[in-house]
Amino acid sequence: MLPVSVADPAAGLPTWEEALFTATSAVCVTGLIVVDTPVYWSGFGEAVIAVLIQIGGLGIMTAASLLAILMARRLGLRSRLVASASVRAVGIGDVRSVVLGVAKMSIAIEGLVALILVTRFLVTYEMNGPAAVWKGVFTAISAFNNAGFALDSDSLMGYATDPWVLIPVACAVIIGGLGFPVLFELRKHIRVPEQWSMHTKLVILGSVALLVLGTITLTALEWDNPDTLGAHEVGGKLLLGFFSAVMTRTAGFNAIDTGAMSTQALFTQDLLMFIGGGPAGTAGGVKVTTFLVLFFIIVTELRGETAVNIFGRRLSRAVHREAITVALLAVAVVVLGTWILLIATSFSLDQILFEVVSAFGTVGLSTGITADLPTGAHLLLVAIMFVGRLGPITIGSALALRTRKLMFELPKERPIVG
Amino acid sequence: MLPVSVADPAAGLPTWEEALFTATSAVCVTGLIVVDTPVYWSGFGEAVIAVLIQIGGLGIMTAASLLAILMARRLGLRSRLVASASVRAVGIGDVRSVVLGVAKMSIAIEGLVALILVTRFLVTYEMNGPAAVWKGVFTAISAFNNAGFALDSDSLMGYATDPWVLIPVACAVIIGGLGFPVLFELRKHIRVPEQWSMHTKLVILGSVALLVLGTITLTALEWDNPDTLGAHEVGGKLLLGFFSAVMTRTAGFNAIDTGAMSTQALFTQDLLMFIGGGPAGTAGGVKVTTFLVLFFIIVTELRGETAVNIFGRRLSRAVHREAITVALLAVAVVVLGTWILLIATSFSLDQILFEVVSAFGTVGLSTGITADLPTGAHLLLVAIMFVGRLGPITIGSALALRTRKLMFELPKERPIVG
Ligand SMILES: [K+]
Ligand SMILES: [K+]
Repeated sequence: MLPVSVADPAAGLPTWEEALFTATSAVCVTGLIVVDTPVYWSGFGEAVIAVLIQIGGLGIMTAASLLAILMARRLGLRSRLVASASVRAVGIGDVRSVVLGVAKMSIAIEGLVALILVTRFLVTYEMNGPAAVWKGVFTAISAFNNAGFALDSDSLMGYATDPWVLIPVACAVIIGGLGFPVLFELRKHIRVPEQWSMHTKLVILGSVALLVLGTITLTALEWDNPDTLGAHEVGGKLLLGFFSAVMTRTAGFNAIDTGAMSTQALFTQDLLMFIGGGPAGTAGGVKVTTFLVLFFIIVTELRGETAVNIFGRRLSRAVHREAITVALLAVAVVVLGTWILLIATSFSLDQILFEVVSAFGTVGLSTGITADLPTGAHLLLVAIMFVGRLGPITIGSALALRTRKLMFELPKERPIVG
Repeated sequence: MLPVSVADPAAGLPTWEEALFTATSAVCVTGLIVVDTPVYWSGFGEAVIAVLIQIGGLGIMTAASLLAILMARRLGLRSRLVASASVRAVGIGDVRSVVLGVAKMSIAIEGLVALILVTRFLVTYEMNGPAAVWKGVFTAISAFNNAGFALDSDSLMGYATDPWVLIPVACAVIIGGLGFPVLFELRKHIRVPEQWSMHTKLVILGSVALLVLGTITLTALEWDNPDTLGAHEVGGKLLLGFFSAVMTRTAGFNAIDTGAMSTQALFTQDLLMFIGGGPAGTAGGVKVTTFLVLFFIIVTELRGETAVNIFGRRLSRAVHREAITVALLAVAVVVLGTWILLIATSFSLDQILFEVVSAFGTVGLSTGITADLPTGAHLLLVAIMFVGRLGPITIGSALALRTRKLMFELPKERPIVG
């Protein structure tokens, strides 16, 4: 990042650690911060962050969507993203149509959300024109791309009672988190759910279930907490509970003080953040589909059935292996990361686990310890953000695309398990 | 439990909750307690506990070994536990030979350990004859069966500097935790490791690796903690670190104060307790073999290879499914149990997670909160102990023994994962 990106040049340039952490957090659309965005960075610095977020968000959506097309073709299945599914490679035409589709959809949704926010900032908060526009645009970009960077030091806590700010932001987050393949299919067949693919049904079913469960649990757990929901009326409690549930998947804005939430609410959010949103979108985590696929595999195993059938379709056996590998590796990364940070710092398990899951799921929520961690811990979080952002999609696609060669087989043995 | 089992009848009979919790803890060889064993129970009550432990230990070893034989036969593999592998059912002869083998081995090892302990109690601690014999026998039974019940209120903390007590107990725990199939094979081929089955190699490799890693980590983490290892000399620190590492898999005695250990050491022990010991023995947890099988599956997936080869043998594909189902269900039980207990009580995540993993792994270590939990939490822990004790083996065998019928197949679809 350039020197001009700092708000107060007299205070010195950003260190390489601050610059690396912030840039990684922006490109990975995580939103964890070591320096306070509005105070530390200049307008130019903020613009750089917004551009990095947009590049990161577009990049991940485009790349993941193209990989999904490629997978569908390789496996000889009907591609739902583009019309011509006859070729087995991804051509320049596909790239063009996906990039255009993703860009158009991003701009349309970000524009709409920015319009509502700018109007609200101008009318109700009487901000001056350029400030309102910049804040509305930045927040809309940050929300749709699930980045969670905010232009206030206290994130969105200043708007905790304003549904006209919280609800547009929540909608942008949810839509961005569904993923491009789902949005593309919904645009075509929104009125005919029978036409939806298993993928779209899984993402929508999972997202709705997690949002409802998350809202109920978080609202109930924080109902009387004087530092979070306690001060609000019933409507406000529900709005903020819903907003908190949405933000764990995996946007990372907060309208109530995360650090003041109870252990129970933090752990609940750990689970939601770990699962995350839909694939090929801007959300992080192991993804809703991975979670539901594992759920259906286990139900099938316990029932003693042989094929995993969901919504009247059989789940491809290759997907079992992908989901299991992604989930096990994710658990390994989170457990190892937590273990190392616990040993290297003096924060509690609550705080460390939350921080690691937040980095892995590229969520960006924090109990407030990020800035106080030592350099080594920051580097580890940078690594976890990258792994969390790129790991699941890379492993999922690599497993799906690979041709397996069977050279010879060794004699078989079966150890006892369990 | 009978009225005479209480040490002080004037104080009233045990409540159903105390009796149920203690009996479950004994039969499942867990060792979590809600009342102080030496103070609350009479000599008769202690004898009942010892008998329940022995029944639980023998039962689980016999049942698991018979299931292993049955599995080996069904799958047409050479059975390593009994000579005649030609019949496909488990006959009365097998049951006889397994029960006798398990009983003989249990008595031999328990006798040897009891002998060392009784001698030590008589000679060094100048206890009177019957007290020394009862304490030595009880401790040996409790150790070999990985039960962790102790006849001192502070478990083995009174013997924290005495290797003549700690090392025999640790050996009994390790041997009991290897599992009967491994012991049976070692007895036959101890000098020719080339002859060992994949199962035996996995258990021994995993146990040694976890013991070494556990000893190093726990010793290092608690080195300067004045309430645990800080007061001891280097030799004592190493002895107690080793003892603590052994006890997490999954015996549950403690010679240092678990409640005073650091967050880091508690989390390290959570991991060790979750993995546990070898199958068809007295240890709990998901089992060393399950853990290593998953490890090798992931390594194979990441390398892009098609068959999981371990020690020059191919891992049976059916085992993949068993290991994955056992591990995922175990994670689900621990996460759900932790979530519910967190919400229902006011203890920290550290303490609750440790308690739940300890119950699931039938370990019996505790940060000291067991007795203070409400009735509902005790019932949940009872359920988790049963699930932890019987779940992995039941699910593993059920999956292995089931014949799958393929009636018809639905059209295939593949959602995006990761
Ligand atoms: K985020
Ligand atoms: K135990």
